[in-house]
Amino acid sequence: MNLLSLIQSKKAGVPLSTAQMDWLISSSVAGTVPDYQLATLLTVICYEGLEAAETLAMTRAFVDSGDTLSWEGISRPVVDKHSTGGVGDKVTLALAPLLAAAGLAMPKMSGRGLGHTGGTIDKLESIPGFRTDLSMQEFRSILQDVGCAVAGQTAHLVPADKIFYALRDATDNIRELGLVTASVMSKKLAAGAPCIVLDVKCGSGAFFRDEAEARAFASQAMAIGRAFGRQVACVLTDMDQPLGQAVGNRIEVLEVLDLISGSGKLADLREVLLALGSVELLLCGMCPDMESGRVQLQELLDSGVVKQKFREWIRAQGGRLSELPASPEVLPNMRSVAVQAGSPGWVSGIDCLQLGNVARRCGAGRMSREEVIEPDAGLMCYVAIGERIEQGEELARLLIHESRAAEADELLAMTQAAFQVSTDGSVPRRKTVLDILLP
Amino acid sequence: MNLLSLIQSKKAGVPLSTAQMDWLISSSVAGTVPDYQLATLLTVICYEGLEAAETLAMTRAFVDSGDTLSWEGISRPVVDKHSTGGVGDKVTLALAPLLAAAGLAMPKMSGRGLGHTGGTIDKLESIPGFRTDLSMQEFRSILQDVGCAVAGQTAHLVPADKIFYALRDATDNIRELGLVTASVMSKKLAAGAPCIVLDVKCGSGAFFRDEAEARAFASQAMAIGRAFGRQVACVLTDMDQPLGQAVGNRIEVLEVLDLISGSGKLADLREVLLALGSVELLLCGMCPDMESGRVQLQELLDSGVVKQKFREWIRAQGGRLSELPASPEVLPNMRSVAVQAGSPGWVSGIDCLQLGNVARRCGAGRMSREEVIEPDAGLMCYVAIGERIEQGEELARLLIHESRAAEADELLAMTQAAFQVSTDGSVPRRKTVLDILLP
Repeated sequence: MNLLSLIQSKKAGVPLSTAQMDWLISSSVAGTVPDYQLATLLTVICYEGLEAAETLAMTRAFVDSGDTLSWEGISRPVVDKHSTGGVGDKVTLALAPLLAAAGLAMPKMSGRGLGHTGGTIDKLESIPGFRTDLSMQEFRSILQDVGCAVAGQTAHLVPADKIFYALRDATDNIRELGLVTASVMSKKLAAGAPCIVLDVKCGSGAFFRDEAEARAFASQAMAIGRAFGRQVACVLTDMDQPLGQAVGNRIEVLEVLDLISGSGKLADLREVLLALGSVELLLCGMCPDMESGRVQLQELLDSGVVKQKFREWIRAQGGRLSELPASPEVLPNMRSVAVQAGSPGWVSGIDCLQLGNVARRCGAGRMSREEVIEPDAGLMCYVAIGERIEQGEELARLLIHESRAAEADELLAMTQAAFQVSTDGSVPRRKTVLDILLP
Repeated sequence: MNLLSLIQSKKAGVPLSTAQMDWLISSSVAGTVPDYQLATLLTVICYEGLEAAETLAMTRAFVDSGDTLSWEGISRPVVDKHSTGGVGDKVTLALAPLLAAAGLAMPKMSGRGLGHTGGTIDKLESIPGFRTDLSMQEFRSILQDVGCAVAGQTAHLVPADKIFYALRDATDNIRELGLVTASVMSKKLAAGAPCIVLDVKCGSGAFFRDEAEARAFASQAMAIGRAFGRQVACVLTDMDQPLGQAVGNRIEVLEVLDLISGSGKLADLREVLLALGSVELLLCGMCPDMESGRVQLQELLDSGVVKQKFREWIRAQGGRLSELPASPEVLPNMRSVAVQAGSPGWVSGIDCLQLGNVARRCGAGRMSREEVIEPDAGLMCYVAIGERIEQGEELARLLIHESRAAEADELLAMTQAAFQVSTDGSVPRRKTVLDILLP
C-alpha cells in the first residue's frame, strides 16, 4: 500500500477501505508517509467527502492510535460532554459541578482556545492556583471524591488526531464533516465515558454556520456513538450571539459564579446548562424524562448545592477563588471601553464571530498555540437579539489589556459594527436551545 | 503574504494575483514554504482550475526562476520543438538533423522517459559513446557547426518547474491544464528559441486522452507564446497506436536510421516528421507555405543529405553509430518473443498505453528516476489500426531483457490483450496528423 495510490483512488471517487484507512493512520503516526502526500489526501477528502463507513473506519483507527481511558472503579455513572465551540461558551464550568452535585461523575479532557473561540482550560487557569496538569491518579481521585475533574488532553489520547488536526489546520482542510466527526468522536470515545452529550452550536459564532450542517454533524456523531455502543445525544444550540454576557477567561469564571448563584439575567446560559444536564441524567437513567431531570437540577442550583460543589471542585484542583476580583469592572491592567448604541431601536443581529475576534484581540485568545493570553481581557456583551435599546445605551464593554491599548479605537469600531439595530419595529428574540436529539 | 491565505482564497474561487503567483514561486524556490502547504495548493488548483491570467503569471514566474538561454551569435534561424509525449515517439531524432539540413538551428533540451513514454535522452544514450552532458560552450559550437544539438535539461533552467513537477508527480496533481501549460511553456520560453512547434499528441498512449483536451492545451500554449512574443504552432497528432513500429531506445534509433534512409513502411512517422518540419520552416519564414516546405524537406530526405547530417550530429556528440547492430532482431541479451494473431480480421484498436507499459517492463523504461533502463529492450509493433491480419500473423515482437525473462508470459498476455481485432469487416485507417494550428 502507498499513499499515492490512495490519493489516486480517492480522487477517482472510490471510498477508502477499512484496511486502507488503518494503514493510512498507523503510517501517519509512525511518520512513514510524507506530510505533503498526507496533506494532498486530506485536500482530496475535503473535495470528495467521506462516506459513513469511511468516517467510522477513521474514527476507529484514530481511537486505536493511542491509549483509551477506563472509569472502572468510579462508583458514580460516568458522563462526558463536548461543545463544538462558541463565543462565551462557559457551560462546562457550570455543568461539571452541577452533574457532580446530581451524583454523576464527569471526567473532562479539555482543550485550549484557538481562533475566535475560547477554551475551558484557559478559562480555568485564570483562577489563581488552578492546575490542569493532573496525573491520572490525582484525576481519578478528584473525580471519585468530588464528582468532576477537568484536565488538558494528554498526548497519549488519539495521537493520530493531533497529527491530522495540525495538518488540516495548516492547510485549510478543517471543514469536511467526516473529518470533523472522526476528530471529535475519537477523542470522546477514547476518553471512555459511556454517556456523551454533544453541544452542537450553529450560527455566526460557531464552527457550523447553519443548522443543516449542525444537524448533519449530529447525525453522523450519533451514528458513530451507536457503532461503538455508547449513548450519544446532541443538543443543538444557537450561536448567533454570545452565550451569556462575558467573553474572555476570568470574566467567564465570574459569570459562572453568578449563574450558579441564581442570577436572573443569564437565562440563555441557564437554558443550555439545564438542557445538557437533563439529557445527561436521562442517558444515565437517573431520571424518567427530561422534564423531571430539569426540575431536579433546578433545585440543586436554587439550593446552593451546586455553588458549594463548584468551590469544592476548584479547591480540589488547587484553585483559589478568593483571589478573584468581585466583578469584571475592577480587573487591573485593563483599559475599559464602553460601546454605546448610536441610535435607538431593536438589536436585530450580532456578528458573533466578530465579537469573538475582538475578545481575542483584547488579549483573551490566541491565533497560534504559542501565543500567551491575558486572563483578564475580553468583552462583556450586554444586549441580545430582540432587545429594545435606547440611544447611548451601553451595548458592550471591552476589557483591553494595557499592552494592546493602541488597538482600542479599531476594536471599538469593530464592536460597534458587530451590532445591527433595526428601527422598523420589534425583532423576535432567538431561541437558545434549537433541538434535542436523543439516541 | 502566506501560503495558507493563498489556499483559502483559491479554494473560495478567487484567482491568484500576479503578485501572489510571484511570491508563491519565489518562496517555493527559496524553500521558505512547507511542502505540505504547496501540495495542498496544487491539489486545490487541480480542483478549481487556473484561469488564463493565472497560467500566464505562473509561466512568467517559472521562467524568471532561473537562467534563460540566448542564441545570439548563431547564424541560422533558431527553432525548438516539444512533444507532449507518446509511445514510440522518436521524432526529435529525425527532425533535428532534417531541420539542420534545411539550414535551421535546433538546440534541444530533452528529458528522460518516465512511466509509459520514452525520453529522447535515453534513446540517444543508447548509441555507444553519445554524450548529452555537454557544456554550454560545446553545445553552442555543435549547434553552430552542425545545426542541431541535444542535451539534458540543466538544473539552472526553470528550477521552479522541477520543484513543482516533482511535487505534482508525488501527489497525483499532474492533469490540470494550466499547470501543464506553465510547465511545458516555461521550459520552451527559457530555452530561448523564437519559433516553437508543439507536437500535441492525443489518444490512449498520450497524456491527453481526447482531442478536446489536446486542443484546449494547444490554445493555451499558443496564447502564452503570443504573450511572450514567440511564434508558437501546434501539430495535433494521433497517439492511439505507437508512432512507427519500434518502442524502446536502441530499436528506435535503428528505426530513425531506416526512416531517413527512405524506408517505405514508416508512413505515419514520416507524416508527423514532415508536418512538424514544414511548420518550423514556415514559422521562420524559410518557405512561403507548408506545401513548399514539405517538398523541400522531402528532397533533403530523398537525397541522403539528412542521413549524412544525422551521422555528423551523432559523431559531434561522441556517438559511434558503427557499433549499433544492423537490426533489432540481432540485439544481444534479449529474449525475443513473437506475439501472433489468434484469429484473422482487421485491427480495430490498440491499447497504446498498455504497449508503452509492456515496453517499459521489458526493460525500456522506468517508473522512478532512479531505475536503470536496458537500452536494447522494447517491442516492435508491426500492425496498425485498419490493417488486415491473418491467423498466426506476427502482430508484435517483445525484446525482453534476460533479467526480466520471468515476466515473459505475463508480458505476452498483456500485449495480446492490447490488440482488438474485428471480424465484422474492414476498419478505417487512422489519420496521423489530426490538425495544424498556426499562430
